[in-house]
This record gives sequence, structure tokens and C-alpha cells, in this order.
Amino acid sequence: MQLNNYIIGTLGSHTALQILKGAKDEGFRTLLVTLPRHKAFYQTFPFIDEIITIPNFSNFPEVEQELVKKNVILIPHGSYVAYLGFEKNKNMKVSYYGNKDVLDWEENRAKQRQWLLASGITMPRQFELNEEITYPVIVKSHGAAGGGGYFLAKDKVDLEKKIKTFGPKRYVIQEYKIGVPLYVHYFYSPLTDKLEIMSMDRRYETNVDAIGRVPHSMQENIELEPSFVVVGNSELVLREGMLSTAYDMGRRVVETSKKLIGKRGIFGPFCLETIITPDMKFSIIEISCRIVAGTNLFINGSAYSWLYYNEHMSTGRRIAREIKNAINENKLDLLLD
Amino acid sequence: MQLNNYIIGTLGSHTALQILKGAKDEGFRTLLVTLPRHKAFYQTFPFIDEIITIPNFSNFPEVEQELVKKNVILIPHGSYVAYLGFEKNKNMKVSYYGNKDVLDWEENRAKQRQWLLASGITMPRQFELNEEITYPVIVKSHGAAGGGGYFLAKDKVDLEKKIKTFGPKRYVIQEYKIGVPLYVHYFYSPLTDKLEIMSMDRRYETNVDAIGRVPHSMQENIELEPSFVVVGNSELVLREGMLSTAYDMGRRVVETSKKLIGKRGIFGPFCLETIITPDMKFSIIEISCRIVAGTNLFINGSAYSWLYYNEHMSTGRRIAREIKNAINENKLDLLLD
Amino acid sequence: MQLNNYIIGTLGSHTALQILKGAKDEGFRTLLVTLPRHKAFYQTFPFIDEIITIPNFSNFPEVEQELVKKNVILIPHGSYVAYLGFEKNKNMKVSYYGNKDVLDWEENRAKQRQWLLASGITMPRQFELNEEITYPVIVKSHGAAGGGGYFLAKDKVDLEKKIKTFGPKRYVIQEYKIGVPLYVHYFYSPLTDKLEIMSMDRRYETNVDAIGRVPHSMQENIELEPSFVVVGNSELVLREGMLSTAYDMGRRVVETSKKLIGKRGIFGPFCLETIITPDMKFSIIEISCRIVAGTNLFINGSAYSWLYYNEHMSTGRRIAREIKNAINENKLDLLLD
Repeated sequence: MQLNNYIIGTLGSHTALQILKGAKDEGFRTLLVTLPRHKAFYQTFPFIDEIITIPNFSNFPEVEQELVKKNVILIPHGSYVAYLGFEKNKNMKVSYYGNKDVLDWEENRAKQRQWLLASGITMPRQFELNEEITYPVIVKSHGAAGGGGYFLAKDKVDLEKKIKTFGPKRYVIQEYKIGVPLYVHYFYSPLTDKLEIMSMDRRYETNVDAIGRVPHSMQENIELEPSFVVVGNSELVLREGMLSTAYDMGRRVVETSKKLIGKRGIFGPFCLETIITPDMKFSIIEISCRIVAGTNLFINGSAYSWLYYNEHMSTGRRIAREIKNAINENKLDLLLD
Repeated sequence: MQLNNYIIGTLGSHTALQILKGAKDEGFRTLLVTLPRHKAFYQTFPFIDEIITIPNFSNFPEVEQELVKKNVILIPHGSYVAYLGFEKNKNMKVSYYGNKDVLDWEENRAKQRQWLLASGITMPRQFELNEEITYPVIVKSHGAAGGGGYFLAKDKVDLEKKIKTFGPKRYVIQEYKIGVPLYVHYFYSPLTDKLEIMSMDRRYETNVDAIGRVPHSMQENIELEPSFVVVGNSELVLREGMLSTAYDMGRRVVETSKKLIGKRGIFGPFCLETIITPDMKFSIIEISCRIVAGTNLFINGSAYSWLYYNEHMSTGRRIAREIKNAINENKLDLLLD
Repeated sequence: MQLNNYIIGTLGSHTALQILKGAKDEGFRTLLVTLPRHKAFYQTFPFIDEIITIPNFSNFPEVEQELVKKNVILIPHGSYVAYLGFEKNKNMKVSYYGNKDVLDWEENRAKQRQWLLASGITMPRQFELNEEITYPVIVKSHGAAGGGGYFLAKDKVDLEKKIKTFGPKRYVIQEYKIGVPLYVHYFYSPLTDKLEIMSMDRRYETNVDAIGRVPHSMQENIELEPSFVVVGNSELVLREGMLSTAYDMGRRVVETSKKLIGKRGIFGPFCLETIITPDMKFSIIEISCRIVAGTNLFINGSAYSWLYYNEHMSTGRRIAREIKNAINENKLDLLLD
């Protein structure tokens, strides 16, 4: 079986450039499904061989047959999952890089919590509205994507006031940890049973990353309410003495997934979203079970990926490398759903 | 005509290292005009073939004849424009990379606003002192460079107090948008009619980027007044779903410039300085019509430039590549003034 | 004498990955001494040829004889110095990259201050508890590592209250400068008498880098006390017009060390930890006399190192290159203690 029997494809948003650039660097043909308004932009990149447009991302299932016929391997990312929705995603017939059983454990916040806690990972406390609550808290609607649908509450009065005008009816109330955020991008290969730390980032959130630039005396005037909409990312490295702890967390998440989710468990790229408190402990907010947007900082490689590869290895390219290796070893079925 | 008939030169500050490293990588000879106190430092770089010192940057016109004789192509940057001044710059006879007609539209804040608004770009509201003003506002003196000469005012009393002791008499009063700053570095080639997003950054400003580290209770004590002096830059990437919007803004700025400024319009590197609000909209503060200091982060290439070039392509090197291409195609006059 | 007569070794923490990756890239064999709990992680990197574990870092002297026998050149870093302690470090017999006489001038805060002031460098004022103090101040315990053991005080009452419950008895009281931090990573080669600026960073500190994200109204509720524990680093570049000043500071620190500390003075990597105030002046908080953790951002090279080297040159690799050059020139004794 040869590489050019396959096309690597994805949805035109999120990490599509990285995924398709990486696929092309590894020798694959590439295909993008995107919206008409994004087409001119994506067309400027020579590594995208074909662009299909659809009126809305929710129209994706309509091109499914075409993708199957073209032998496309679809690389899912955050926007793919968000736009397509849980059910549609599970029912798609196009070759899908990843284990769809993981989706059940990620989408349901209670099961996700069970998985992470079973992996020996510390998470912030969660509260029910009628429980005794330790303040401040952050309230997150279910299925919130890109940091929209969050709010902070400093005390009971504040929470009860804000919850009244909060649209979503399904949400979690989480202890708000005062610490610095750091996102660890992992890649686990079932072909080699190796886990790699590819890179790290922090999110760039509007307006919460702007309010520190407004002095105290002015904040009094304008009643700032922080929002957490992710519009970018910036690079970080972690203190090396904490790296093995980060690595071990990733390992345990993989091992536990093999028990809880099924034989294959989680593989490929995933991300632990951490808050680091002054006692140098990680508190895990969430797991993302696929490539995350923060990896876009490292299309030309990261300080960490340089340790494993003497080449410009992004997470997107790592995915294509994995698929190529599997094709060469006749093990592609291990990676697809 | 051969490359070594030309020398790429610039003023020793701002982005000079990037420009001359890029020029050398593309095969040009290089020349730097700088101050005596910077000479020892710049001499440590082997890619700078010749250094001429002048007592002050305002003495630059005195070396003009020498540069003309040496067939220097001068690459302007922010410090060049700031130190030389508008009139002197327009009257220089040395070959100048760029369209000097753009300077008129950039220097005059009203014309700049007209250009950007005609490009369909959203800008913060501006006020006159005698108008009804929506607070908070940021007041910027005309010709303020590097973020000096700015102040914030939270209300009318604050504005009127601060304006009294504010030195500059020409200034704009701008709505202060609460959102995160992000600077997009574009490159437009008239040779290929292609626009590229080279990289992105945010500025590192003292002391405004320090005040968030001072807790509330201490800010009460020390009456912090934010200042916006740019002393560095840090890297960012933008949410990919917003990239085509950023790209389209750049496109429209180029197209509009061809109508407003003249046939060539703006070309080469330019930068849109954006604030991103929680509705994920760009508000444009300013345009810089040449290479900006934020590109110094990417002397070894950026995540974005890696998408176009499988080599370490900085904006400085991109300029030299453009000039080389023009020389090879006998189109150098398209790029010079 | 050949490269493979030597092994480059270090302690498994801090910047060990960078140091050993760089050593391997330059052709050396490599050895790591680390704790059992870090072993599995470090074993994933093929550039580490041998790993020796010890129960605690303080057990390091027990492997000394083995390292001497193997002809290891030990590269010290911040954790090495912190864990081993001043006296043990000075008495170790294994080949040590660096000048141990520098340790005396670094460890003693009064001597360090004398050295920097003699280099014409500006430092924040320091106070004794019984002096008249200008507030706010930051109090730092002696030998504080990684940013632990610091506190801020806004006035006399605050200082006196906090000092009572502060564990350490040896500390300095320093003027708290409101400005942005920037760390400059230098490398000075005695083989060539050249000084290079390798890269720059800022520290990522918990929780002080988180408190700006907590709005004013909420800070009132939760009585935030900032802590300065370093858990990571992020990249910066400096305004180019200030680069020659940064370079000159590094030069003077080297020159002065040759007079104060002895003929060799300081060489190899060191770092000036600066605060930049709105007048664009550097205020130097501290010098680190060896490789700092911020260089971990640049394992694949930095914007600055790319100016000197058309290859992926980290500070760790630069050290190995230096040792290789010294071996080839028969000058290794210049670099070792």
C-alpha cells in the first residue's frame, strides 16, 4: 500500500494549516473542507491540494461520500468536534484518525472526571448549586468551546445573581484556582508505545488577559467582568524539575484509558490543561483528546519536539508521520475508526 | 544586473540586525549607518560588511551622497522614519525600498483613519475634547513613537486634570477598548500580487505590562499610572478561525491603498495593530507601513512563515528576497522610490 | 586528545535536556545523574547515553569517583548549585565547567552587589530593617532558589507584620521596582574573547502572573498575596535600540570579574535579571553565573543565536561547542576547574 493511495483531510479551521502542511511534508496528498469565506485564504497555501467548500460546517456529512470515495483519512480537531456535534461525528463513515470511543468519555464531564481521577490526577473541586461552596468559583457551560460561556463568581450573592441571567442550563461550578495556566501537548504512539511531550502553551483570552493592564483605580470605574474567549496562544516551557511529573500524568492517562475506554484507549495527540499553584502542583482543568490550537505556535517545531527529532516536527506533522509509519508497517487499522 | 552591484543598507536600530542578516542570507553586501555607541555591538556580527557612524541619527542626510555612490538600497524602519522626520525622509535621494507617497497617509492621523475606514476596517471611536466622551479613553500625542506620550483617563475629571500637564499639544483622544492586543505582520509583493502573513506579536510595554503583577491592595498605596513604552515583544499565534479575517483586512488595506495613494499603493511589509474584544472582533488601532519591531522575534522564521517557506524566513530576509527577485526580473523600479 | 575521551555530564533537572542534547549534537558521549523518579522520563531521550540514579541530589558526592574515572566534564546549572550547596560544590574533584572562584562572588549578596556596581550597573536600592525605607519593597531570603522565599510589602506596617512570620533569618529588603522583567542570556568565550547574547526570556511565576487575571472587585474578596515561584519561562526580544546597552553591561560584568575574581573571571553562560522601567533603563536584580532555565525555550535556537549561527544553537549546545573547540586547540584547562 502506498502513501498516495491516501489523502489526509480536515476541516478548514482550528489547526488545519498545521495538519495539512505536516501531511504534505510527509508525502501525502491533502484535502480541505471549508466555508466559502475562508477559501481565498486557504488557497494561498501550495500544500493544500484540493479545497471543497460547504455552506456551513454542519453540512459536512453531505460531502462524506465524496471523501470516502477519495480514500480520505480525516484528522479531527476541536472545531471539527464542536461543529459536527457528538452524534454526527460518531456516525460518520469516513476514515477517522483516532478512537471514537474516547468521545464518550470526553464529552460527558462526569466520565471525564472519573477517567482523570482514576489516573491519579488532581482536579479542582466541583460543586452543586445547593452545596456549600468555597469561593471564588468559575462556572462553565457544558460543551463550551473556545472559552466562551464561562463566568467567575466571587461569593454566593455574586453566583446567584449571575446564574439567573446565564443562558445555558447545563454547567459545572468549579473551584477557581489562583495559579498560572499551562497546557501540555502530548503525543502517544500505539505503534511504538512511546509518549512524547511535543510542546506547551498558554491561551490568550479576551478580555481576561487584558484586565491586568487596567489599573486598580480605573477598574473601579468600569466594572470589569472577565470573559475567557480564546483568540490565540503563546509559548511556554515548564521548569525541568516538573517535566517528569507532567510526563507521568500523560502516561497514566493513557494507561487508564486502556482499562476504562477499551483496548486501544486514547492515542495520538492530546492535551492536559493545567493550573500550577504556588506549591508547584498541577491541577487539571480538562483533557482535550485530540490536537489543540496551542500547537499552532510550533508549526516549525518546538524546543521539546527538537529533543526527539532533528527536524521541524509539529504535532500536525507528527500525526502524518504516524499514519505513514502505520501504512509502512501494515498497521493502519490500529489508528483509524 | 547582478546582486553584488547593490548594497542593502539601513539605520542601526529597530530591525537592522534582521534586515542585514536577511540581506546577507540572500547574497547581498550590507551596510549599516549607526551611532558611535552602538558600533562595538554591531561589529560582532559578521553579516554586516560595513559600518558608518554618525554623531546623531538626524545627521543621516550627511552620508546620503556616499550611500548613493555605493548604490545602496535603503530599507526604512520605524526608527528611520522617527529619527529622520517626515520631510527629510521624503527629500532623501538614496534608493528607498517602498512607496514614499504612503508616508503622507500614515503620518497624518486623519488620512490614516480615512484609509483604514475605506478598507472596511473597524477602529475605536475618536473624540474631540469638547465632545461628549465615552470613558475610559487613551490619549496619544501625534508622532508618538515606541509607545511614549500616551495616557489613560477614566473619566472627565481625570482627563481634564491630566491634559493640563500633558506636554504635547497635538493628540488624539481614543476610546480605550478592553481587549487583548495582537499585531499582524503582513508582506505584500507587487511582483506576484500575493499577500502573506509573516508572523504576529504583542508588545511588551513598561510599566503597563507590570501592573497586573501588583496586587489590588498594593495598587491602592502607590497610585499606579500606566505608561506604554515599548521595550520588547513576545510571540503570539491567532485562532485559526480568525485568520482569514485577518488576511482579508490586509488584502483590503492593499487594494484601497492602490486607489487612494496611487497606482503602486502600499507594498512590502506592514502591520495592523489590533485589539481583539470578547466578541472576537478586531478593532484596529493603527497601521505601520513598514517592517515592525515585533518581527525581531522571528529572525529564525515563524510558525506562519514556515507555511510558505521551508526555510528560516524572517520579514527582513523576505525583503531581500523580494529585491533579489525584482533584480532578476528587471523590475527593481517597481519597489524603489 | 579526542572528543570521545570525554563525557559531558550533568544533574537530571533544570537544563539537563538542553545540555546533553547539545553535547550529543557536538559529538560527545553523555551522562546524567538523577533521581529514581525522573529516570523513566529521561530514558525516553536517545541522546542520553547513560543514567546513574542517586536517592537524593545531596548524595551526588557519592558518585564523584565514578565520574572522575569516566572522565566526565560536569556542566553545573542552577539546581546543581542549589542542591549540592556551596561548600560541597567547591570541594568536588570532578572536572567542572566554569570558574569556581565565581561562586564566592555570587553566593554572597554583598559581594555580588559590589561586583555589579563596580561594573557600572544600576541596581535597586537595598535597605536594613532599621533604616528609613522607601515602599513598596520585596524581601528575599538568602539562597532563595526558583523564586520561593520572597514577599512584597507595601508599607512599614505590612513589612513588620510579614517579617514576624517569615521563616528565614537572612534576607535582603529591596526596593520593588515597577517595571517589566527581562532576562538576558549571555555567553562569553575566553577562547575568542567574544561575548554573545544567546537569547532572552521572562519567568513564569505562580501566583504573581495569575493575579492580573483576577479582577479588582474579586481581589478585594480573596486577599491575594503574591508569590514568585518560577514554574516556567516565556520568550522575549528586546527593543533593538537597547541591545547595545544590554551587550555593554555583559561586557563590563566580564571585564570587572577579571579584576575582582581573578585572571579568568566569569566565562561561559551567565544571565542578568533586569527590570526595565518606563525611562527605558535597566535595573539589575541579580546575576546568575551559569546557564539559566530560561534558555530551555531555545533548545532549537533563538532569534538571537540565529544571528551568529546558521544552525539550531542553544546555550547548552554552545557550551559543548566551546569545550570541543578547547579540546581541538589544546586549551581545555582554560575552561575547567
